[in-house]
Amino acid sequence: MSARPREVRIGLLGYGCVGSAVDRLVREQRDEIERATGLRFSVVRALVRDPGKLRDFQPPDGVLTSDFADIRDDPSIDVAAEVMGGLIPTERYVRELLAAGKPVASANKQLLARRGARLARAAARAGLPLRFEGAVCGAVPVVRTLSEALPAGTVQRITGVVNGTTNYVLAGMDEGRTFDEALTTAKELGYAEADATEDVSGEDAAAKMALLASVAFRRRVELEEVVWEGIEDISAHELAAARADGRRIRLVGEAEAVDGSVSVRVVPTSLLAEDSLAQVPHAFNEVVLEGAGLGRLVLRGPGAGGLETATAVVADLLTLASGGAASHVAALDSAHSRQAVCVT
Amino acid sequence: MSARPREVRIGLLGYGCVGSAVDRLVREQRDEIERATGLRFSVVRALVRDPGKLRDFQPPDGVLTSDFADIRDDPSIDVAAEVMGGLIPTERYVRELLAAGKPVASANKQLLARRGARLARAAARAGLPLRFEGAVCGAVPVVRTLSEALPAGTVQRITGVVNGTTNYVLAGMDEGRTFDEALTTAKELGYAEADATEDVSGEDAAAKMALLASVAFRRRVELEEVVWEGIEDISAHELAAARADGRRIRLVGEAEAVDGSVSVRVVPTSLLAEDSLAQVPHAFNEVVLEGAGLGRLVLRGPGAGGLETATAVVADLLTLASGGAASHVAALDSAHSRQAVCVT
Repeated sequence: MSARPREVRIGLLGYGCVGSAVDRLVREQRDEIERATGLRFSVVRALVRDPGKLRDFQPPDGVLTSDFADIRDDPSIDVAAEVMGGLIPTERYVRELLAAGKPVASANKQLLARRGARLARAAARAGLPLRFEGAVCGAVPVVRTLSEALPAGTVQRITGVVNGTTNYVLAGMDEGRTFDEALTTAKELGYAEADATEDVSGEDAAAKMALLASVAFRRRVELEEVVWEGIEDISAHELAAARADGRRIRLVGEAEAVDGSVSVRVVPTSLLAEDSLAQVPHAFNEVVLEGAGLGRLVLRGPGAGGLETATAVVADLLTLASGGAASHVAALDSAHSRQAVCVT
Repeated sequence: MSARPREVRIGLLGYGCVGSAVDRLVREQRDEIERATGLRFSVVRALVRDPGKLRDFQPPDGVLTSDFADIRDDPSIDVAAEVMGGLIPTERYVRELLAAGKPVASANKQLLARRGARLARAAARAGLPLRFEGAVCGAVPVVRTLSEALPAGTVQRITGVVNGTTNYVLAGMDEGRTFDEALTTAKELGYAEADATEDVSGEDAAAKMALLASVAFRRRVELEEVVWEGIEDISAHELAAARADGRRIRLVGEAEAVDGSVSVRVVPTSLLAEDSLAQVPHAFNEVVLEGAGLGRLVLRGPGAGGLETATAVVADLLTLASGGAASHVAALDSAHSRQAVCVT
């Protein structure tokens, strides 16, 4: 193929840790992406609160804007990535982008877990895909594996360590640190947010497991349907007792489809030390997919990080720009008994 | 979506272990696949040498044929899967299928490694995708991860245990069995073919690493460019010495892109016992992908098996039937400096 490359103009909602990494990755890998796909990517606009703020990675003049309409109403913008987080006004922005004809890649786990059904209907109305690999497990391509690499009906069970902060804290306590010491180090290393409540309570893992179960079993699982428990009440004594038994306590998510009904839970679980889920290092994530035609498929990798999440977002943008992209949200709409994987 | 499902009629080349599993999987998961994708799959024709032979899994009358033209020239067949193996007449069949307008999913590692460039040109001429997830590492979606889940330029290094037979034999020798005992058990368990020469010599792993490197680095790597060595000359003494040192010897494939040149090798390697590649169980495969925006991404799963390979083939058929499918072979054609990921 020696045709001219097709220009793909990207609008970003957000230019923080993930957004600026998307821009950087697109610049640094632009030529390689063009050679591989014939698509020439550029970030042309990014929505931020304060375009004048000093930033580590400064985009060219004119890219940053504080006016959402500059992205929504620009017909030259082909695809959009939502990397701003939050529910309000994020949900409205994503719906308006879809209505304006722009496919969207989102890295916003809480948005998808809490507003997924409404977003799925907005995407279906627009006839456009909405993808969210970046919302679950960073650079680990588990959403794509469940939605595209495995035929529907293949996966019967998902188990996983899907929250890096709690994994880091429990492993740190195993090495003799207190809960508070381990959590402080996790924050210093950037594994945990300043406010780690959602991590520690298990809610973050619950949202991820609800999304994975929805995609795997092709039926919407609400966050409220997930039974979850955090790691706040695990004592050093319990961990030591488990260790003395050749076991480790880790926060494990589990989703199963049995006779047409889906159950999802996130609970501190005692694992054999040899179990691969007991050996997930640092702030990594690991997801284990089981099914008859699959055996036991393990995906492990960095579950967070700006550049790692940006890798997943850019992969989604590439798939969206290639056309014929599968929508990840179809499974989040319980109102539709038959869901289109291919919406464009 | 409540539109009528779209019928997708599949032609199979081959109806052995993998082919019959594709048929079974399509039957058993037909309703779930339809609900998820709107596509209704059926295997309508399968090419075999002897349609009259007794089979464990017997398709309905009229499916089996010994005449390739029954598949190539049937305009009602939408997509084809090549699961017959070999190079002759397989290569010609695949080229003729593409020329006849049928996208192809192949599970034939040697065909892709040895005839990839010609097949890539045939696919480009036809304007149709040719995919080969089933050709490498069974149900582990590593080809899709490299070609679609990660933007071009993300992966800098691939290491892997990609041959289950040699992994089983080396692990068996670690437990005190002789080379011959371990290989015999591997054959009895169906992990190894009756003729395991390609496994033991490292050639099977070399072909897989050449394909993975081609897809990852978007440049054709010939089998002849791979430096490889087998496990025939590893003595029980060497394995014991490694074990005494807290190490394990495993057959490890390694591919790296450095300054625009790609190097690929497969050699018995001494690994720390804690290394995840030293802990790959039984006949499993594990591939480790490393790069700046990726950290260390690990994919582990069953590297062979009829049903597991069929899962990968059916996933490729679904992607082909959804349209806009990426072609895995574009990277195998060194004559094209810019390669289309999206050929349809």
